[in-house]
Amino acid sequence: MAIYIERVERLKKIGRNAGISAFLINSEKNMRYFAGFSVSSMERFAGIIIPVETNTPMVIVSKLEAEKAKECSSFKQIRSYDDSENPALLLNQIIKELRLEKAVFGVEWTLPFKFYRMLTQCSPRIKVEDSSNLFSQLRSIKSAEELEKMKKAASIVAEGIKAGIDSIKPGVSELSVSFEIEKAIKQNGGESVPFCLVLSGSNSALPHGETSNRKVCKNDVVLMDVGAVYRGYYADLTRTVFVGDATKIQRKIYETVLRAQEAAIKTVKPGIEAEKVDRAARKIIEDAGYGRYFTHRTGHGLGLEVHEEPYIAPGNKTVLKPGMSFTIEPGIYFIGRFGVRIEDDIVVSTAQGKLLSNLSKEMLVI
Amino acid sequence: MAIYIERVERLKKIGRNAGISAFLINSEKNMRYFAGFSVSSMERFAGIIIPVETNTPMVIVSKLEAEKAKECSSFKQIRSYDDSENPALLLNQIIKELRLEKAVFGVEWTLPFKFYRMLTQCSPRIKVEDSSNLFSQLRSIKSAEELEKMKKAASIVAEGIKAGIDSIKPGVSELSVSFEIEKAIKQNGGESVPFCLVLSGSNSALPHGETSNRKVCKNDVVLMDVGAVYRGYYADLTRTVFVGDATKIQRKIYETVLRAQEAAIKTVKPGIEAEKVDRAARKIIEDAGYGRYFTHRTGHGLGLEVHEEPYIAPGNKTVLKPGMSFTIEPGIYFIGRFGVRIEDDIVVSTAQGKLLSNLSKEMLVI
Repeated sequence: MAIYIERVERLKKIGRNAGISAFLINSEKNMRYFAGFSVSSMERFAGIIIPVETNTPMVIVSKLEAEKAKECSSFKQIRSYDDSENPALLLNQIIKELRLEKAVFGVEWTLPFKFYRMLTQCSPRIKVEDSSNLFSQLRSIKSAEELEKMKKAASIVAEGIKAGIDSIKPGVSELSVSFEIEKAIKQNGGESVPFCLVLSGSNSALPHGETSNRKVCKNDVVLMDVGAVYRGYYADLTRTVFVGDATKIQRKIYETVLRAQEAAIKTVKPGIEAEKVDRAARKIIEDAGYGRYFTHRTGHGLGLEVHEEPYIAPGNKTVLKPGMSFTIEPGIYFIGRFGVRIEDDIVVSTAQGKLLSNLSKEMLVI
Repeated sequence: MAIYIERVERLKKIGRNAGISAFLINSEKNMRYFAGFSVSSMERFAGIIIPVETNTPMVIVSKLEAEKAKECSSFKQIRSYDDSENPALLLNQIIKELRLEKAVFGVEWTLPFKFYRMLTQCSPRIKVEDSSNLFSQLRSIKSAEELEKMKKAASIVAEGIKAGIDSIKPGVSELSVSFEIEKAIKQNGGESVPFCLVLSGSNSALPHGETSNRKVCKNDVVLMDVGAVYRGYYADLTRTVFVGDATKIQRKIYETVLRAQEAAIKTVKPGIEAEKVDRAARKIIEDAGYGRYFTHRTGHGLGLEVHEEPYIAPGNKTVLKPGMSFTIEPGIYFIGRFGVRIEDDIVVSTAQGKLLSNLSKEMLVI
């Protein structure tokens, strides 16, 4: 529980510096991050109130979720309402108890209009500000405990991709391969598989393609881009393999993407700007003459969400710090022909970038 | 396209009656319903503005989505911004063009705080109201075209459950059965499988249980609760089967749940309150002496969302109208032993309730 108390204290500190008097946290991800439990807030209101000047954080949930909140939450104060009560009245009462009638509330940008209105109707003097950047700032630096979960998630995805590779042969559909991957992920303890792209032949050239009934053929390229969640944390890996044979140009493209990915990984260290890592990958691909076929950013932050800060993209001046974790996933796509992408998850350590995932990148012809 | 124009005209009409001067629609589901296309609005703002007094509905999307919006949308006016532009400026410009600086905007309760603020910062005189009930009111009555999609979705889920049943034998894991179901659904054209619960043995007594690695044993009950989406529309079916043999009490419970489900279906007709349908199922189960083991509502509305109006629950006085569609899914659960639930999807026709799904409910011992 110490970890949650520490996170709340850090949030209070950056809140004070930003002129926030209390936070209202309503998203599942941030409830999980700051209080160690999460409930869906879509049908029934749930939230956490954290005043920055006092030690009185409070959880509000429906009675249906109160037991779960008591068991899992690091917060001592749990207040609940049943289906015959209006959560707005409870919120109103709590705002008065905590003397937050003139507070500047920091909220998430996603806070639903209905809950925003519930909050502002408690007092005409309440002000509300978007504090999403403060939440991201804290969440972008992972603790050792979080990194252990992410490593486990990555090893689970690796098992999935291995099972997928084992099932690839001419005549198998993309969907069958994706089922083998999902099955292995679930059997290895993955909580969910939010995406499992298997793209074969010319489909591999579509970074946003969809897994289909298409059957893998001899001489196809097969690209697998897979995400899984373990105890709330994401891993996201991509591997590209060749069936039967690989042409000279396919070998060259694979080797170029791999060099680009490794160059980007080597560039990672504390103090470097995110865009420099993107630049390192892009330069290799440009120098090989394929710059215009690398059509997306090099990576994205990873943690409780599959896309979060820091984005490894041109123009992002965010300075990398120890504990930041993200994907590195350059690719080259020849529309109508084939595409290659290689993606790993890494964390910034005190000296360099360290892989969270451990899955061979050697070119594989099946 | 006529269908979208008709929906927008209906929305304008009920908006006028409710004192709304314009709608801002931002959810994927409602964009799909009113404009025939949908884009995620989570990373980049997207929305539809529908003034109720003029014929000038307008779509705002990022440049990345503009082509898709032009192809699919029924709206002629598509405005877009690129990644270097602030969508708030574009929204502001449109509000001024449409002379909506003093408008009362009807929005969805889910509208993210960030977009609410973008809207209200366009003019200090803009007012915002939660119009979720108006959207639900329209969406709860399905057109023939929507019902065709829902029937197709139900037939796809039925194929999935049949494949699941075919794979059940002692020694197979719940996860393997669920993979067979998902595979059949995707092979039959299901867009996605948002849930696929397979609960065996005493797990079948947990209405919110999770599919696990547990292996099906002889004399187990196996409950399958499966949802799939076809062209945006949901189906949601549950079947419960017996492995090897069924005890006398299991036979009695199955027969009671089936009678309750059929009684509820027979009760459905236009003019009846939703709670009456719930009552019909509940009465059969109470009369058989199992009232306290039926721990949830009898059903929920179904359409572009898996839970929507009308809820078939005690206390819901909503009057059923032709075109409303929902699940009927009574169950009896003996914690630690077994549970039985039978679920079908139905629509209110001009005279009665009609099944959207067509899958045997005869008691099955495998």
